[in-house]
Amino acid sequence: MPLLQTIEFIAVMVSAIYGILLASRKGMDFVGLFSVAFAVAFGGGTLRDLFLDRHPLFWIANGHYVMWVFGLALFGAVTPRIIHRLEKYLLIPDAMGMSLFTVLGTSYALEYESPLFIASIIGVVTGTFGGVIADIICNEVPSLFKPATTFYATCSFAGSWAFLGLHWWGQSEPVCMAGGAGTAFVFRLLAVHNDWRLPASHMD
Amino acid sequence: MPLLQTIEFIAVMVSAIYGILLASRKGMDFVGLFSVAFAVAFGGGTLRDLFLDRHPLFWIANGHYVMWVFGLALFGAVTPRIIHRLEKYLLIPDAMGMSLFTVLGTSYALEYESPLFIASIIGVVTGTFGGVIADIICNEVPSLFKPATTFYATCSFAGSWAFLGLHWWGQSEPVCMAGGAGTAFVFRLLAVHNDWRLPASHMD
Amino acid sequence: MPLLQTIEFIAVMVSAIYGILLASRKGMDFVGLFSVAFAVAFGGGTLRDLFLDRHPLFWIANGHYVMWVFGLALFGAVTPRIIHRLEKYLLIPDAMGMSLFTVLGTSYALEYESPLFIASIIGVVTGTFGGVIADIICNEVPSLFKPATTFYATCSFAGSWAFLGLHWWGQSEPVCMAGGAGTAFVFRLLAVHNDWRLPASHMD
Repeated sequence: MPLLQTIEFIAVMVSAIYGILLASRKGMDFVGLFSVAFAVAFGGGTLRDLFLDRHPLFWIANGHYVMWVFGLALFGAVTPRIIHRLEKYLLIPDAMGMSLFTVLGTSYALEYESPLFIASIIGVVTGTFGGVIADIICNEVPSLFKPATTFYATCSFAGSWAFLGLHWWGQSEPVCMAGGAGTAFVFRLLAVHNDWRLPASHMD
Repeated sequence: MPLLQTIEFIAVMVSAIYGILLASRKGMDFVGLFSVAFAVAFGGGTLRDLFLDRHPLFWIANGHYVMWVFGLALFGAVTPRIIHRLEKYLLIPDAMGMSLFTVLGTSYALEYESPLFIASIIGVVTGTFGGVIADIICNEVPSLFKPATTFYATCSFAGSWAFLGLHWWGQSEPVCMAGGAGTAFVFRLLAVHNDWRLPASHMD
Repeated sequence: MPLLQTIEFIAVMVSAIYGILLASRKGMDFVGLFSVAFAVAFGGGTLRDLFLDRHPLFWIANGHYVMWVFGLALFGAVTPRIIHRLEKYLLIPDAMGMSLFTVLGTSYALEYESPLFIASIIGVVTGTFGGVIADIICNEVPSLFKPATTFYATCSFAGSWAFLGLHWWGQSEPVCMAGGAGTAFVFRLLAVHNDWRLPASHMD
């Protein structure tokens, strides 16, 4: 399906950019840049494909994705000055990757006849796991699990349910995709801008 | 099989409770509580299912498990006072989850015709991986791998072999399950109570 | 195929030895030694098998591998003095395991008709992931991702392409294996000896 593939390609690219910026900030070399970009761009989708027993994995079936990520990492390694200047926009590719992978994950899960609640969970896993794995690699507490951070998984969850709602309402695939990803993306930007967060559960 | 499903449901519930208590102690919000509970409750079984190529995964085939965990996390997030009071019993749900998932993992592996030693390893992986992944998420050295901690994986291993012994002796499934899980659970409580540990391998 | 199995057995053994030395240095007990050895010896190959949907997993199909690793860990736990003396040679089993698993991963990926670039990536994942997972378990930034370390993944990558080059040139399997693994191994030893490293990408 050309639509899904286009969205997937964009999701891979923006996630790779996020990974490269993240690794660059940690002072990694080219191999580190490529590895973190690889983990962020393909981590969530790989977990989704393994969970759904969907083979070949999306990046094995689309070998050119990996070459693009390789090229981006190479570009990032030789132009640290540009990368450095882009660092402050880290939020944008991260939020875009999360939003697009969320609706992709939800959509694939539906295709594999998962129940609705499971489909939303798989959407959230697909949308957020790349970032989690990148944080684990960099030996940080994944920001997803830090005490009371600004909404992240919650945005993914909302986007996933927006997708499911539009789908249930009988809307076409592009509309569901746009509605779901848009909800997650805008919600995330608003959350960061207004510093929305859930209360910590710890009693004091 | 109703017996296996009942045991699995209990194992999921107690593991989720352990995850919620753990995440609550770290001061996480609702999303963190749910995520850690999800990882502890489904991590070991997911790895087992992937290793054995068993699809759909047990929590996709039993979608209500995930909803129960979601409900528990919600309950935990709105009643921090109760959670706080339960924290000192952390050991009990942890030991129960480990014991039950160990015998489930061993039993499923046998069903997939794994050799005995492999079946016991898969039992241990199923029983302990949820806790390992939760520790990795929280950025701690998994207690499983800390120098000379009180017996944990060893209890799981013992429970797995008790199960295999009873199975080889021709006992019925419920007897094997009870014997294996009971062995692991009692061994674990005794180990913590008496502070049993293996000697560290480091030379001094 | 006896050649592949022999190489695989050697790769498992040297990786297990590396894992045991690593865990011993951290002062772990027998269970820790076995677990880290297990992770290093089977981590990369398991990921490869899951990625390629290759079942049963190589260590389930060859149950004796696990027993050998178990035996080695037991030997390591009761002879800390010997282990302590071997610690300074940590580099050798690590480089050998990486080299052998790299060509095994590349070879299996070709067999599953992966495109060349993907086959090389799967070779690198197979060759390096065991070490990455061991580092994550021990709660360190995987050395693979540290700023500007001496070449490691790069050696694996070079070995993988040497294998693919020889394969494309029409050489026999043993020649490809020897050429690829030899390239990775010698490259790694030279890199450590001469402290070759890529420049860090961070701008200063």
